[in-house]
Amino acid sequence: MKTYLDCLPCFMNQALRAGRIATDDEHKIKKLLDEVGKLIQQIPMENTPPETGALIYKKVSEITGNDDPYKEIKEKNIEHAMHLYSELKQKVLESDDRLLTTIRLAVAGNVIDLGVDKEFNIVEDVEIILHQEFAVFDYELFKQELKAAKEILYIGDNSGEAVFDKILIEELGKPVIFVVREIPVINDITFKEAEQIGIDKIAKVISSGTTAPGTILKRCNDDFLEKFKNADMIISKGQGNYEGLSGVNRSIFFLLKAKCPVIAGNIGVKENDIILKGKSNSKLPL
Amino acid sequence: MKTYLDCLPCFMNQALRAGRIATDDEHKIKKLLDEVGKLIQQIPMENTPPETGALIYKKVSEITGNDDPYKEIKEKNIEHAMHLYSELKQKVLESDDRLLTTIRLAVAGNVIDLGVDKEFNIVEDVEIILHQEFAVFDYELFKQELKAAKEILYIGDNSGEAVFDKILIEELGKPVIFVVREIPVINDITFKEAEQIGIDKIAKVISSGTTAPGTILKRCNDDFLEKFKNADMIISKGQGNYEGLSGVNRSIFFLLKAKCPVIAGNIGVKENDIILKGKSNSKLPL
Repeated sequence: MKTYLDCLPCFMNQALRAGRIATDDEHKIKKLLDEVGKLIQQIPMENTPPETGALIYKKVSEITGNDDPYKEIKEKNIEHAMHLYSELKQKVLESDDRLLTTIRLAVAGNVIDLGVDKEFNIVEDVEIILHQEFAVFDYELFKQELKAAKEILYIGDNSGEAVFDKILIEELGKPVIFVVREIPVINDITFKEAEQIGIDKIAKVISSGTTAPGTILKRCNDDFLEKFKNADMIISKGQGNYEGLSGVNRSIFFLLKAKCPVIAGNIGVKENDIILKGKSNSKLPL
Repeated sequence: MKTYLDCLPCFMNQALRAGRIATDDEHKIKKLLDEVGKLIQQIPMENTPPETGALIYKKVSEITGNDDPYKEIKEKNIEHAMHLYSELKQKVLESDDRLLTTIRLAVAGNVIDLGVDKEFNIVEDVEIILHQEFAVFDYELFKQELKAAKEILYIGDNSGEAVFDKILIEELGKPVIFVVREIPVINDITFKEAEQIGIDKIAKVISSGTTAPGTILKRCNDDFLEKFKNADMIISKGQGNYEGLSGVNRSIFFLLKAKCPVIAGNIGVKENDIILKGKSNSKLPL
């Protein structure tokens, strides 16, 4: 997905939110906003938004001296989500369509996104999303690809969200490679949180190599690129991965809640809609 | 009121909204956002936000070639407000406290503010504000000053809003000098719209000389400054004038709806609260 004009003020808003989480020093935050302001003119609109996101969150770390501003919030979100785990598993066991329920839970987990300016209540959001109609629902295609797949590449998104991803992965019944970011960026998942959640017990965890809050192929490492090219089935979680990968000529299932009006518009749905969007299983050149 | 960190992303948002109203050319809008982005680093935080607003809206005009982007919207808002005039006057006649009702109507008119990112429905907003409790309500002081005043300086704000100001001015029962902006900025009122509404028939209309979306004394003309210094009573409408004048050591009645969280925080009220805020009648040096 390209950068839209609306993304430009949003970059400033993101910088302000992240700056405030990283430091109490207003002068540093002003310096951060000055730098992001100067950056605007250098943003090619054909770039995907997470490419700019990578630059912004790097500046947040450099200027505030805080490499992982969301550390405590991530831990709190993970703890809260893990506390819900048994109850959520029970919901899956009691449901008529277990796979679909775990897909819904994985979408519900996607509300734990600190890159967007939205409050969330994970308990309430789970209840809503368990009964919400999908705006895009390529479930038959998903089941077809899942049935045929020998191995699944699952691209993770936020840290707390991955507890919900774990529940879906456990239901997929196929070997899974779970992809994390290379470094902490916003509240996105890295090796550390994947281990904390125990994803490494049920999937092979690899880093995409990206330092952006989304998967940008030209910034990914060879190991990931090779697996991305050859995967039987790819599941991409969340907005940042959608922004990075929606323009890639490859069968990918995008599983997300459209929390931002620009992304909703790009998909052709309304804000707050939930999405299971697939493409036919073409392994075309990237 | 000084510039807060939250104002900086808001300047970018304002530029985007104004740019889109001024032109359909996305390249020009990108250029505008580039320029506003570069401007961020030059903004002294001790400046009032409308001082930066003046620079931004000047850039909107320069880059898009449109000197009065809000012209059509202003005309539509004025037409709509004037259409309601008789009905509103009837509400005043039927009310127990006519002065208070006209004050409430003048606050209701303040929702017609295209500098903030809020939708409004003037008919619904009038009904709400006619019954809403004031968060700051210096009405007794207002009546005292009004009773003693020989002449009132009334600093206008938005164009459609001035139809509602007219109803209050008619109720004040004292000679009024109505102050407009020097040039079109957002949908703020200038001589042209004041005449269109007929304010010139019930008050003397003068320009403050400011090109900002708010009254900034150091940018005002001598005529206004002299009247501001000597006025028996000053009524300042809306957010932009509050931002410009709240730090001035002078008795001023601020009449507004706090539509922005930063301004609400500065006043010490909640967003969407309505305000009639006065200071004791000190004619201290400016």
